[in-house]
Amino acid sequence: MEKPTKNIRYDKAAEALYIIDQTLLPGQEREIRLETLEQMYDAIKLLRVRGAPAIGICAAYCLYVLARGIETPDAAAFEQTLEKYAGELNGSRPTAVNLSWAIRVMLETARAHRQEPREALLEALYQKAVEIQQEDIAMCRAISEYGLSLLKEGDGVLTHCNAGPLATSRYGTAQGPFLLAAERGMKLRVFSDETRPLLQGARLTSYELQRGGVDVTLICDNMASIVMKNGWVQACFVGCDRVAANGDTANKIGTSGVAILAKHYGIPFYVLGPTSTIDLGCPDGEHIPIELRDPEEIKTLWYKTPMALPEVKCYNPAFDVTDHTLITAIVTEKGIVRPPFREGLAALAER
Amino acid sequence: MEKPTKNIRYDKAAEALYIIDQTLLPGQEREIRLETLEQMYDAIKLLRVRGAPAIGICAAYCLYVLARGIETPDAAAFEQTLEKYAGELNGSRPTAVNLSWAIRVMLETARAHRQEPREALLEALYQKAVEIQQEDIAMCRAISEYGLSLLKEGDGVLTHCNAGPLATSRYGTAQGPFLLAAERGMKLRVFSDETRPLLQGARLTSYELQRGGVDVTLICDNMASIVMKNGWVQACFVGCDRVAANGDTANKIGTSGVAILAKHYGIPFYVLGPTSTIDLGCPDGEHIPIELRDPEEIKTLWYKTPMALPEVKCYNPAFDVTDHTLITAIVTEKGIVRPPFREGLAALAER
Repeated sequence: MEKPTKNIRYDKAAEALYIIDQTLLPGQEREIRLETLEQMYDAIKLLRVRGAPAIGICAAYCLYVLARGIETPDAAAFEQTLEKYAGELNGSRPTAVNLSWAIRVMLETARAHRQEPREALLEALYQKAVEIQQEDIAMCRAISEYGLSLLKEGDGVLTHCNAGPLATSRYGTAQGPFLLAAERGMKLRVFSDETRPLLQGARLTSYELQRGGVDVTLICDNMASIVMKNGWVQACFVGCDRVAANGDTANKIGTSGVAILAKHYGIPFYVLGPTSTIDLGCPDGEHIPIELRDPEEIKTLWYKTPMALPEVKCYNPAFDVTDHTLITAIVTEKGIVRPPFREGLAALAER
Repeated sequence: MEKPTKNIRYDKAAEALYIIDQTLLPGQEREIRLETLEQMYDAIKLLRVRGAPAIGICAAYCLYVLARGIETPDAAAFEQTLEKYAGELNGSRPTAVNLSWAIRVMLETARAHRQEPREALLEALYQKAVEIQQEDIAMCRAISEYGLSLLKEGDGVLTHCNAGPLATSRYGTAQGPFLLAAERGMKLRVFSDETRPLLQGARLTSYELQRGGVDVTLICDNMASIVMKNGWVQACFVGCDRVAANGDTANKIGTSGVAILAKHYGIPFYVLGPTSTIDLGCPDGEHIPIELRDPEEIKTLWYKTPMALPEVKCYNPAFDVTDHTLITAIVTEKGIVRPPFREGLAALAER
């Protein structure tokens, strides 16, 4: 498989749903078929499919597959069973917003078509799942286009963590412009931070970019400074988990450090993400809570080899907040917002 | 063992040389006895003992042990055999300056006492090895005292990589002040960068500080920014591999990034090391070559688990250069040098 990976694939002819098991990457590229509710629940719970948009898309197809398996000719019983399945699937990752959103959309679709013959109802569900996937592709593509407009042939770009095709539908957000450039034969040189402790940059980003034909070089997080000093980086592209009204941006731990280095070396720093991550109700970064994770992620290398004394204290924040003053622009599917961000982001919301 | 580790220990009563096998840390704290030339060669070659000063001290004791084993009553034959052993031991790590220096000193000692009875000659060799170890302890202690004078009760300090007791004799350089503070009951809060790719911070620094009674918290390298932003860091202490005449400092990869973050957050950044690492013949950092290491250190987690596609390119510099403008002061056993460094370092050399 030497092309960009397809993380979620529905084979209509065979009526079969496949996902790439992301827990096996990059060692193995293996598709698994999801047929039962238990398999679907585990796939999301155990991170075989991950990334909020990807989880939403997967859940939509899952509900279609589950609906096909409901045998009853009674419309009310059908709906009741589907709702039961949906409720169980929704419990797989309670905090992923896209999961509950996609499930809600699918249930609404089922209700809207409840009076139609079984085959028409199923077809409507299938079409809705396809639509959710297509909309995500369009959004990622728009972000990628806007992002790519900020780069020129031969540029070096540094990126952190993973917001590529595996986490979305296709292209991705922060890494989307690189794949789009590769499709067009535009040369870029991408540096991928490995992103400790969970190594999403090493395991996923460098994997996706290499497979997508992008010239990618993997580095440890602490090598970003020397790579910038060497003059190899003309821009930094990162994703976002939440953007406050003033532009302060929460993203994977280490992002704020990259932004400070970029400022020191005079390199523009871009945040890429859908408008759905902009939270105008959150005034600034001080109001974004930072998730603290299991110290074992740091102390026990990949949960296998002890790398520190068991009694050593660890501080393991999953995210950090990059101050808006360090951000050159925020790139969304609706366009590029530059400072002052408070005004720009508010205007974007009205578009 | 709940006290600072003793990496090299000579038991005079039993006439036995022991080292802590650093390759087993932090999982196992095991002393091994070095009796044969082959064991000694392997111990240095395979990094069971590491850190330039520690290697020198170990080699000195090794030559004493080897000399004891030479049976011939003939002085010339004794010297010839000892020189042969010394030449072989010196080949274990050709680039470590302290290794060849210590071996040279021991051979000179043997020559100076060649006319004396066997027992007197052996005693002179033993005393010289002890002296080399004691001198390193004194140098580390002086650096630690000067370093500690820059801190006050309750300070938070961030450190990178390892330059502690395991790499030297006792205390160490960059981490020496923390152990000295602990001995005196002075409270500090130390943050130890794990230091990818080889994790010296996780495996060695946090181990040594924890064992030494220091309040240490292990973090991933990319967490330094959030720790500083939280207001938890009042100073950064790092070691050095080479200091140029203008103060530009080569040290473990990632050090320059820490210095830039410190400047951004207004935190003083200190370099600690012996005057022997100051190279007045090297005008600036541009003239310091940077060693590139095996990509597998990044790609294959601890040489066991693949963490990236085998074909992904990696950039793996072992060191980076911190610009002198980012350094608050350079702390040596002869005192603390502040900018302008060119004048200060030259004056230090004349002391």
